Amino acid sequence: MKKRFEITASDHHSSARSGIIHTAHGPIQTPAFAPVASQGAVKALPHSIVKNLGAQLILVNSYHLYLRPGTETIKKLGGAHSFISWDYPILSDSGGFQIYSLTPLAKIKKDGVEFSSHLDGNKIFLTPENIIQIQQDLGTDIMMLLDYFLPYPSSKKEAQQAVKITTQWAKRSHAYLQKNPTSQHVWGICQGSIHWDLRRQSIDELMDIGFDGYALGGLGIGEPKTQFMEMVERSSSFLPKDQPCYLMGIGYIKDILQAVEYGVDLFDCVLPTRNARNGTLFTSTGKIVIKNKKYEKDRRPIDERCSCYTCKNFSRAYLRHLYERQEIGSAILNTIHNLHFYLDIFQKIRQSIQSNSFGQLKCSIMNEKVEDE
Amino acid sequence: MKKRFEITASDHHSSARSGIIHTAHGPIQTPAFAPVASQGAVKALPHSIVKNLGAQLILVNSYHLYLRPGTETIKKLGGAHSFISWDYPILSDSGGFQIYSLTPLAKIKKDGVEFSSHLDGNKIFLTPENIIQIQQDLGTDIMMLLDYFLPYPSSKKEAQQAVKITTQWAKRSHAYLQKNPTSQHVWGICQGSIHWDLRRQSIDELMDIGFDGYALGGLGIGEPKTQFMEMVERSSSFLPKDQPCYLMGIGYIKDILQAVEYGVDLFDCVLPTRNARNGTLFTSTGKIVIKNKKYEKDRRPIDERCSCYTCKNFSRAYLRHLYERQEIGSAILNTIHNLHFYLDIFQKIRQSIQSNSFGQLKCSIMNEKVEDE
Repeated sequence: MKKRFEITASDHHSSARSGIIHTAHGPIQTPAFAPVASQGAVKALPHSIVKNLGAQLILVNSYHLYLRPGTETIKKLGGAHSFISWDYPILSDSGGFQIYSLTPLAKIKKDGVEFSSHLDGNKIFLTPENIIQIQQDLGTDIMMLLDYFLPYPSSKKEAQQAVKITTQWAKRSHAYLQKNPTSQHVWGICQGSIHWDLRRQSIDELMDIGFDGYALGGLGIGEPKTQFMEMVERSSSFLPKDQPCYLMGIGYIKDILQAVEYGVDLFDCVLPTRNARNGTLFTSTGKIVIKNKKYEKDRRPIDERCSCYTCKNFSRAYLRHLYERQEIGSAILNTIHNLHFYLDIFQKIRQSIQSNSFGQLKCSIMNEKVEDE
Repeated sequence: MKKRFEITASDHHSSARSGIIHTAHGPIQTPAFAPVASQGAVKALPHSIVKNLGAQLILVNSYHLYLRPGTETIKKLGGAHSFISWDYPILSDSGGFQIYSLTPLAKIKKDGVEFSSHLDGNKIFLTPENIIQIQQDLGTDIMMLLDYFLPYPSSKKEAQQAVKITTQWAKRSHAYLQKNPTSQHVWGICQGSIHWDLRRQSIDELMDIGFDGYALGGLGIGEPKTQFMEMVERSSSFLPKDQPCYLMGIGYIKDILQAVEYGVDLFDCVLPTRNARNGTLFTSTGKIVIKNKKYEKDRRPIDERCSCYTCKNFSRAYLRHLYERQEIGSAILNTIHNLHFYLDIFQKIRQSIQSNSFGQLKCSIMNEKVEDE
């Protein structure tokens, strides 16, 4: 009974809902944001700070951990939680996205995917069953199936093929799990590019097999925003209402708010952490590029309305200095701020759904210049 | 009355003593270790962690801050404490060492030092008075005079010249301070290489002028250990007993213990923080080079006797993984450990002097393999 999804509040005016994904390592209050910890660490922060900022789960990368230090090693060391010493929920992605994006010569075969390691060029062949086993070795709380990730744009024929293979692999994954059951959440990833008929087919086929949750994959990769949002809206309304819906890799706050309105429960993105390291900082009045000369003598915090450690203690002038000097502290303080910014918005989103005021919150953030420069 | 040095305990069996350097930003319990924060940040740690680890003061670098963002800018922003948001004591070095080590063509002239910025090659000329003014602009708690730093080996004639110019500059600094008084500690730096007659002359001449404290400069730069230690022993016993003695740039634990026994009160060194970033970790049973393959599956903490956040939470296997993946978290967690290791030893040194058991502590640490590999 540990892996289940419980809806605790539904917005009266939209499909937004708040709930709890129960996992073996504790609950995840939704809508939730998973900071990316590809190698088992959120870049530039010790876990204690990540947790204190309000992160409920982190996302680790099966592909990277499979290659190094190897899932065999991690299994011997007690699994991902024990290896990285993070005692809260962990979501592992299936590696599908990395295989296609980091290894340009990846070949999709009927039985799985063949690719060359981006590290040493070694040929690797992984089946859907391997991907499950890797994540069973990791022992993460939510594992994702291997999907056939398609870049944008692709032809409709390619998208049909991707849906077909994604379903075949999902069936094989399911069969494997029948013989090798797990208490981990197992979530499917639907594909179909920007074609609703294909998306619907993909979701239908995955639901027929039956998983603990469903993710929307292959979106937010360059397609027009309206088509992206159409896919999110139609997909989330078509998915089973009592199961969690995860929109993979999406990080723009305005997209997140829109997706929450459509009923999405879970998000992950490198945006807040990567931007932090690049010196791009989020504020309620627009993005700040901290290296700009104009901040050289600016005594103000990044965001006067922000209550994070960085804003409570440090000026833009000092943060610019640290960035310009390439001090590691720049990455640390910037990441604290950006991650606080994101996790704080998610906290507000959950509260607003619980208090039936999500519409006002969305409006008020949409009217801010949160992502402008 | 804010700037004074108070001795609170003296070892019965050696010249070791414990005391308090009172500054405008609070007390420094001695013997003390100043983590290096050249650019106004201890590398890889936010101030909150530095403070929680037990650091009482940090050392900032006048040379670097003078060049960027410029001491004018820092002054406008309220001085170093305000600029970097560190509310505890700050020691600033005079920049002498950086000028000689980073700008190989530095020319010592009668009135000061001419050098090319290591950043853009621009010619800069700084007088002893400039160096005081820079540190007055920074508003640090302890400022150091400009000295004539000499590499090892140098001829005796060069060492004589260095002592002579160091004294001349100290006189000019003192005269400048008569007209521009400060509540900051002003400490002189004695030179003289490994020649006791010259060291003694340098100390004598500085004491005649009269400063708030005295530093031993130009040591630990390649000279034989016995000669190094002879200089420390003779210098510290020759210096006024009621004033603080600072051994600049020395970081080996065994050297520190020996120097404490001779009466040294203050130390700084990049060793714990730089080593941390290079993956070299101190333990009571010897140094660990965390990248070594043998730690790949090692579940143990860096040091089983250590109580730091890193050792309480993370295995060598995970720390090796972070180091190998070049994760910023590697620098963070390693720096926490190494700095804890140092500050913990200083805490023990102070306690042992207070309880008249410094000899036992020194013996016990000297018998550990603390700096072996």
